[in-house]
Amino acid sequence: MRLRRITGLRVISMGGAEMHATLSEIRKAPEGIIKAQEAFESVKDEISLPRRITYTGCGSSNFLSQLLAMATNALGGEGFSLPSSEFLNARNYYFLNHELIVAISRSGETTEVLKVLDVANSKTLGITAYESSLSRNADYSLVVHTPEESVVMTHSFQAFYFAYLQLLRNSYGFDPYDHSDVVELSKEALANEDYVKWMVEDFDFKRVFFLGSGILYPVALEGMLKMKEMALFWSEACQTFEVRHGFKSVIDSETLVVLMVDYEHEWHEKLIKELQGQGAKVLLIGKESLGAKYFIEMPRSDSLLKPIFVLPVVQLLSYYKAVKRGLNPDNPRFLEKVVRW
Amino acid sequence: MRLRRITGLRVISMGGAEMHATLSEIRKAPEGIIKAQEAFESVKDEISLPRRITYTGCGSSNFLSQLLAMATNALGGEGFSLPSSEFLNARNYYFLNHELIVAISRSGETTEVLKVLDVANSKTLGITAYESSLSRNADYSLVVHTPEESVVMTHSFQAFYFAYLQLLRNSYGFDPYDHSDVVELSKEALANEDYVKWMVEDFDFKRVFFLGSGILYPVALEGMLKMKEMALFWSEACQTFEVRHGFKSVIDSETLVVLMVDYEHEWHEKLIKELQGQGAKVLLIGKESLGAKYFIEMPRSDSLLKPIFVLPVVQLLSYYKAVKRGLNPDNPRFLEKVVRW
Repeated sequence: MRLRRITGLRVISMGGAEMHATLSEIRKAPEGIIKAQEAFESVKDEISLPRRITYTGCGSSNFLSQLLAMATNALGGEGFSLPSSEFLNARNYYFLNHELIVAISRSGETTEVLKVLDVANSKTLGITAYESSLSRNADYSLVVHTPEESVVMTHSFQAFYFAYLQLLRNSYGFDPYDHSDVVELSKEALANEDYVKWMVEDFDFKRVFFLGSGILYPVALEGMLKMKEMALFWSEACQTFEVRHGFKSVIDSETLVVLMVDYEHEWHEKLIKELQGQGAKVLLIGKESLGAKYFIEMPRSDSLLKPIFVLPVVQLLSYYKAVKRGLNPDNPRFLEKVVRW
Repeated sequence: MRLRRITGLRVISMGGAEMHATLSEIRKAPEGIIKAQEAFESVKDEISLPRRITYTGCGSSNFLSQLLAMATNALGGEGFSLPSSEFLNARNYYFLNHELIVAISRSGETTEVLKVLDVANSKTLGITAYESSLSRNADYSLVVHTPEESVVMTHSFQAFYFAYLQLLRNSYGFDPYDHSDVVELSKEALANEDYVKWMVEDFDFKRVFFLGSGILYPVALEGMLKMKEMALFWSEACQTFEVRHGFKSVIDSETLVVLMVDYEHEWHEKLIKELQGQGAKVLLIGKESLGAKYFIEMPRSDSLLKPIFVLPVVQLLSYYKAVKRGLNPDNPRFLEKVVRW
């Protein structure tokens, strides 16, 4: 039923031929999960992850590396992440103590990520969407076949995350998730497309803050980056309650605050009241609206799965904001699909 | 001589009576170092820091906690930092393995920071400017007597950093720095005030990116926050070479890029060319201009001291931008000196 609803939307809203590749890629979230499960199954007997892992990538893949580090810690390992350029140039400022380096690049050709392999002092695992320099040069590789036409990374982000999360669970003695549930819940997440589109029409915000805590903080960062890439827009991210420490000076009646809520805390309601009191409008993605102007209900699931259901919403938000601003999200200014030096 | 130059500036530029408290506090950087040295000396025989330390704070103090973690790692310890709200609410996503928690709050009364002491599973050390709840409730305290009239944190940031850095060096078997050198170099840094003021007049930028790597990345974050707090302004920060991964889509002819350079790398010159090619103007703070439109020479020093000399420049930049925008930096919108729940 959900699938029908999405397919319907696709036809109604854009028509088949004119649809932006970026929107098409965002809508592939459920297919991405299937590809992710295939990737996991193809390596699960061959790769057993150790406890101490350093994660690295650039841009979206850097935020994904933060997500993977958090998942590792939540499952009892020791995960740490840093951008690849920092690994290369400023390593002594970070405490690295890994048995494995996991390097992420959608194209598998990002210069900094490949250079990390050259200087790695441990085994390496590459996560990528293609048979590529990364998959060939790393000791192990997890190739999630989610090639994207879009310049910006969309559904492959969640696909990479899910494939690796399954591998982590399998390695650490937890049952992998039933991926068909995750596929269904991804469809539910995408079913918010109409609401997101309406919201962008309803409120012509001039800047946007993404707030998330724990496993949703890297999702907030990714939302921030998507909004810049697609909509060339003033976007911010911080750990939820950090926003009251300085950041909130720029939150006013022109600001949308996207608050991603994973756990209950009495401060959430106070925070919403405070920020809406400054004139902002809050979109809460979580269990209940808590007085926020806009609300999207998140599917009930394990916390570690939540990024998978929140990401399509923030991707759609950036996409529709870009379209509203008259921009072509398929051709973001100054950006290229593969970043090389 | 340097001191005279600064004193002269003070009189010429604003007059004594009308000067904003914030500017006055920024200019106290050298005095802050003296206070820091006194604080260090008062505890050095009593406190010996262990190797594994978790750092925490909120807002500016969160960025300071990142700086302290990096300094710890650079000196051979194991430092990690996270915002206090994350420590309280999302601890399981971080790998914490400390013998000591260092909690930072200028006022010593920040709710989240005090709550960390309540749930701490190790000894605690508080860094603060006052005899306060933090200094009283922590097992150890480092009170750096740099009270500030300004709502935003300015020279106390570097003072806290220097006092603690001395303690780290002393604990880890390195000679503490000669603080009188640091006082002199702080004066040199402040002597760039005229240049910063001129630059703000010369280029009416609409957004600003702070780029730093390693020990200068938390300085970039602090610059980003100061600019929001004082100038209510679109400001960004990322690890230097991360900027090419998505962020640069919003870097155009209205953008000032503040590039803080600590180490030599062939990519710096390429990056400046690329960003200025997009229309931006780059202010390089470092050893040589490398083709940047604006340039401030950083005093030669150990890398770990560089934040102390870069911070006054970014504080001045935020201050003068705020004044140019007709704002009163002493009274930043929506902000209070002590953040409580």
